[in-house]
Amino acid sequence: MKIGFGIIGYGYWGPNVVRNLQKLERSRVAAICDGSEKARQRAARDNPGVRLLSDAAELIASPDVDVVAVITPVWTHFELAQAALEAGKHVFVEKPFTSTVEQGQRLIELAARKRRHIMVDHTFLFTGAVRKISELLRDGTLGRLFYYDSTRVNLGLFQHDVNVLWDLAPHDLSIMAHLIGRPPQAVVATGQHHLNGHADVAYLTAYYPDNVIAHINVNWLSPVKVRTTLIGGEKKMVVWNDLEADEKVKVYDKGVDVGNGQGIYQLLVSYRSGDMWAPRVEPSEALTTELNYFLDCLERDEAPHNGGEAGLEVVRMLAAADQSLCQRGQLVEL
Amino acid sequence: MKIGFGIIGYGYWGPNVVRNLQKLERSRVAAICDGSEKARQRAARDNPGVRLLSDAAELIASPDVDVVAVITPVWTHFELAQAALEAGKHVFVEKPFTSTVEQGQRLIELAARKRRHIMVDHTFLFTGAVRKISELLRDGTLGRLFYYDSTRVNLGLFQHDVNVLWDLAPHDLSIMAHLIGRPPQAVVATGQHHLNGHADVAYLTAYYPDNVIAHINVNWLSPVKVRTTLIGGEKKMVVWNDLEADEKVKVYDKGVDVGNGQGIYQLLVSYRSGDMWAPRVEPSEALTTELNYFLDCLERDEAPHNGGEAGLEVVRMLAAADQSLCQRGQLVEL
Amino acid sequence: MKIGFGIIGYGYWGPNVVRNLQKLERSRVAAICDGSEKARQRAARDNPGVRLLSDAAELIASPDVDVVAVITPVWTHFELAQAALEAGKHVFVEKPFTSTVEQGQRLIELAARKRRHIMVDHTFLFTGAVRKISELLRDGTLGRLFYYDSTRVNLGLFQHDVNVLWDLAPHDLSIMAHLIGRPPQAVVATGQHHLNGHADVAYLTAYYPDNVIAHINVNWLSPVKVRTTLIGGEKKMVVWNDLEADEKVKVYDKGVDVGNGQGIYQLLVSYRSGDMWAPRVEPSEALTTELNYFLDCLERDEAPHNGGEAGLEVVRMLAAADQSLCQRGQLVEL
Amino acid sequence: MKIGFGIIGYGYWGPNVVRNLQKLERSRVAAICDGSEKARQRAARDNPGVRLLSDAAELIASPDVDVVAVITPVWTHFELAQAALEAGKHVFVEKPFTSTVEQGQRLIELAARKRRHIMVDHTFLFTGAVRKISELLRDGTLGRLFYYDSTRVNLGLFQHDVNVLWDLAPHDLSIMAHLIGRPPQAVVATGQHHLNGHADVAYLTAYYPDNVIAHINVNWLSPVKVRTTLIGGEKKMVVWNDLEADEKVKVYDKGVDVGNGQGIYQLLVSYRSGDMWAPRVEPSEALTTELNYFLDCLERDEAPHNGGEAGLEVVRMLAAADQSLCQRGQLVEL
Repeated sequence: MKIGFGIIGYGYWGPNVVRNLQKLERSRVAAICDGSEKARQRAARDNPGVRLLSDAAELIASPDVDVVAVITPVWTHFELAQAALEAGKHVFVEKPFTSTVEQGQRLIELAARKRRHIMVDHTFLFTGAVRKISELLRDGTLGRLFYYDSTRVNLGLFQHDVNVLWDLAPHDLSIMAHLIGRPPQAVVATGQHHLNGHADVAYLTAYYPDNVIAHINVNWLSPVKVRTTLIGGEKKMVVWNDLEADEKVKVYDKGVDVGNGQGIYQLLVSYRSGDMWAPRVEPSEALTTELNYFLDCLERDEAPHNGGEAGLEVVRMLAAADQSLCQRGQLVEL
Repeated sequence: MKIGFGIIGYGYWGPNVVRNLQKLERSRVAAICDGSEKARQRAARDNPGVRLLSDAAELIASPDVDVVAVITPVWTHFELAQAALEAGKHVFVEKPFTSTVEQGQRLIELAARKRRHIMVDHTFLFTGAVRKISELLRDGTLGRLFYYDSTRVNLGLFQHDVNVLWDLAPHDLSIMAHLIGRPPQAVVATGQHHLNGHADVAYLTAYYPDNVIAHINVNWLSPVKVRTTLIGGEKKMVVWNDLEADEKVKVYDKGVDVGNGQGIYQLLVSYRSGDMWAPRVEPSEALTTELNYFLDCLERDEAPHNGGEAGLEVVRMLAAADQSLCQRGQLVEL
Repeated sequence: MKIGFGIIGYGYWGPNVVRNLQKLERSRVAAICDGSEKARQRAARDNPGVRLLSDAAELIASPDVDVVAVITPVWTHFELAQAALEAGKHVFVEKPFTSTVEQGQRLIELAARKRRHIMVDHTFLFTGAVRKISELLRDGTLGRLFYYDSTRVNLGLFQHDVNVLWDLAPHDLSIMAHLIGRPPQAVVATGQHHLNGHADVAYLTAYYPDNVIAHINVNWLSPVKVRTTLIGGEKKMVVWNDLEADEKVKVYDKGVDVGNGQGIYQLLVSYRSGDMWAPRVEPSEALTTELNYFLDCLERDEAPHNGGEAGLEVVRMLAAADQSLCQRGQLVEL
Repeated sequence: MKIGFGIIGYGYWGPNVVRNLQKLERSRVAAICDGSEKARQRAARDNPGVRLLSDAAELIASPDVDVVAVITPVWTHFELAQAALEAGKHVFVEKPFTSTVEQGQRLIELAARKRRHIMVDHTFLFTGAVRKISELLRDGTLGRLFYYDSTRVNLGLFQHDVNVLWDLAPHDLSIMAHLIGRPPQAVVATGQHHLNGHADVAYLTAYYPDNVIAHINVNWLSPVKVRTTLIGGEKKMVVWNDLEADEKVKVYDKGVDVGNGQGIYQLLVSYRSGDMWAPRVEPSEALTTELNYFLDCLERDEAPHNGGEAGLEVVRMLAAADQSLCQRGQLVEL
């Protein structure tokens, strides 16, 4: 029997989740809920026959809903996810997981108590590009990791309730957690607001053990869209340009070899400059892969790797970054 | 009569200074000094007939030397410039000006006392690109400045005596001072070292009055060379890609208009998306323009805008950034 | 009352036509016909409630069908369009119009006799890019036209019934007719086949009056997708890169000025190198604009500019190119 | 003892030849000849101590000149090279070799009679990029060659004595001869002139045995500089972009596999889309490599592969292309 999903929120991203769930063999969309009549009209036109609701409580209470997908603004996540878990439903929730660390912790505890699963929608982890980079790190191709440096800027969709870090940084924070595999030790964030009280330009540095450093440049006021990440390893280095149609991931056999220098100014550094290689990247839609993986987890009653804990780590970093940002770059230990 | 230059240092950059001075009508190269015999041999081959010295003191003392050009590592600048000024010579000195703020201050005082001029070689200020951007800011085309955000990364020439900030950031620091026109209030720097004790990856944020923010990303471990700066104004935004052969400067008629919102979540932001325009950028060699300007200054006995004070501001920011870097992003007020 | 469309062919392009007709206020889709059951199933899923047919004759005979849209392989166009016109329907037909010049002529005559309209789906004419370039030519910005040079290559969808010219060149041929505004005098085509009997690589030169020349490079065996057209005018030159997200059309203030030379080898040519300018290009969907224009034409009973004659000119050039190709570049006068 | 070179022509390219010959251990520049006093002044400044002449005959007669380098306009090549060979000198001659096929043939015969060597300066054959592509063809990586397609356009230095084919196409013609390894069967050229009587836009197709086809697009009126060549093989395909600083040569594991279709419309074509790979390309200066190779040939008394015959093949194709161009694409068999 198909697993029934109830979708709360039919704005920008909700239709993609619905479209994928309808397409997959093991899932079906039992109901869609949105407070806006216009959104419900769109949902009706796109999905003839699906039950439409304006009250989230009604959706959560529906017996044919096994999983509640919370695709709403972040400040509503906690309450909706909590209600869904209390009602014994699994939860698929948009990133960032929650508005505060405490909310995230409470949802994790509640899910454990109710023996239900949470998946936080860190979609990028399921792209061909991130999966390929992850593979290159894990199989030793890149060697020891030196740094992760992402630029994610464009003329932004201004949000009223969050700053540019909460809007754009969760992508990189979830990817960093996935690739680096260890929690950061401390965060420094700087930035500035120009239009309303929320920062529209921000820079985040995260310090990790063993001299690994990560940096994220996010900006809602850039005239051009950039989605480029440099990943430096001891053996090889990667440039990931997510805007390229093909060749999103380029692996450079370039680097620095340090020898034994003699004398005080004699650091022997030699440069390697070899081939570049753009491995084929799986072009399938990340959201499809992610939802399929969620269905696997539900069938096997296993926690997904992008569950509550992964979501919480991102929220913890966002909260630390906010604190640092307010104090103009004050180091916040984690 | 031509102005005589004595050049100290014939490594990577010295030959360019010599070539330009030989080409200009108002200057001549009286002598070249380098401690390395190999460098002197190169100088002899490139400049038949020019006097070659191994002792800087001898060059400084030469009566046919009116200006001493100090094109040596930063830690030697103070001593050589001091000796030159003491001997009554003008000084052209490579950037960064000095190793410490105090050294810079003492050279400025000495030059004033001796009524001699110092020019710090902030070459980028004389490129067609920076001159065009400066013009667009000053004539109001860009509107109020929001941010300056530069990425300057490549597989670097490791320096033994300085970190990546001292190597790569002076370019942007001098440009920022020139474009923003006001001193920064505070600096935050983060970074990491991976090969020797010096940071090879670093990020610098500078806070300016009126919510202007600047950021510099410098990296010696990048597999690709990037020289891209975003400059956001209220009316228009600029992308300056210095690696483009043509179209280095692109001006985007893109931006955000903020209206009067009603209600709590109703910030009315509308996006403008208009033409893009790449003004023709003067292709002449920046160093030629700069040296010509120095000769003008010397003839008129006027201080250049890239004199000791401009050099000192860059050193002050580098020193502050170093201090912040050591304390993992501690805010350093200026 | 809405104008009723009957769509024949629900393969790759048909769904786009249907989606647009459903969206527009003045049109509705009365029926969709496709011989393949799989295609009909897709059509049913995408368009609940729309009548589905497997027999084109039945669709053409339907009283609620005012316009027949023929979105099928080129070798079927003539027969279907003829039947539709005979039945008193207007015709919207995929490019290329027909397989032969004679077929095109007969359809034009039939439409005239029946007082019905034909629109050939030269979609590219309705893109923001082509409309902008057309405007720049017509308002004199570019000056006298020198050449049109298009590269349209990729790893191709091999067609079984046509060669690469019939597949890819109609786009450029229709654009050339639109921009140049005069018929070509002669055509030369070269090319080669490598996999089956149809040319998969081809080059077409068209000679126009007043030294205007056009060239099209089409290729099904290119590892990269290229959609770049250079358009040279006496005053300004255009690079149109259709794969760019923004800045599809770039106008260069570059050119050559010829003066009066003295002596035999003294052609005085001077180069201009000025600004580049990327005008904002209307991003709306070309097919929507085109169908809206067709509805205008039908309402006003006016022939569209991309009617049978425009379609015939493209077919005439394709036929001439085929003839030239067979004779390895033999000039074919038109 | 060093081999003595006499250089005739010190315009744009001559200085590069001189600089390289001075740098190499086995060669020296005995004399430089140029009819223009300005050019001789430049030569004197660049090469203190070298003998300067205004009379080519005097240079050719000099006993310390073993090789005469003819770096002059093409219409002077024959006379100068003939005189040099008659005087018993070897000849290094700029491309294109001669103005006519007959001239080339006579020089080849004369060199054979005099037992002297001719090298035609097909510099591109000695670039890292062409050597790498050649290697990929010869070792079977690319599989059977399908096509060579080059675009070589820019805002051109108008020549008074030749058209754009003679100016820009020799690069590709020499590379094609080198890579394809067999003479073409026929040539088709089209083009147009807009400013003076010489074609400034031209397109050349060359037919080779076994369905290999080559195409060259040359243009002096392009607003942008393009140097891109697609090379299609049965197994892999290459994009060579000579304007890229790194990654000039990209090898795509993309292609088309043809299976056995059933039925008339059932050509089974499947697409491969795999990795892309940019092999490291030797960055050393091509002219240095070429001159070193010439010195090897002279020492061993061996004919260079880019000798008179290679030069003649290029001239033969240019002459055929000119003939075809005049007749608007008439096929010229070779």
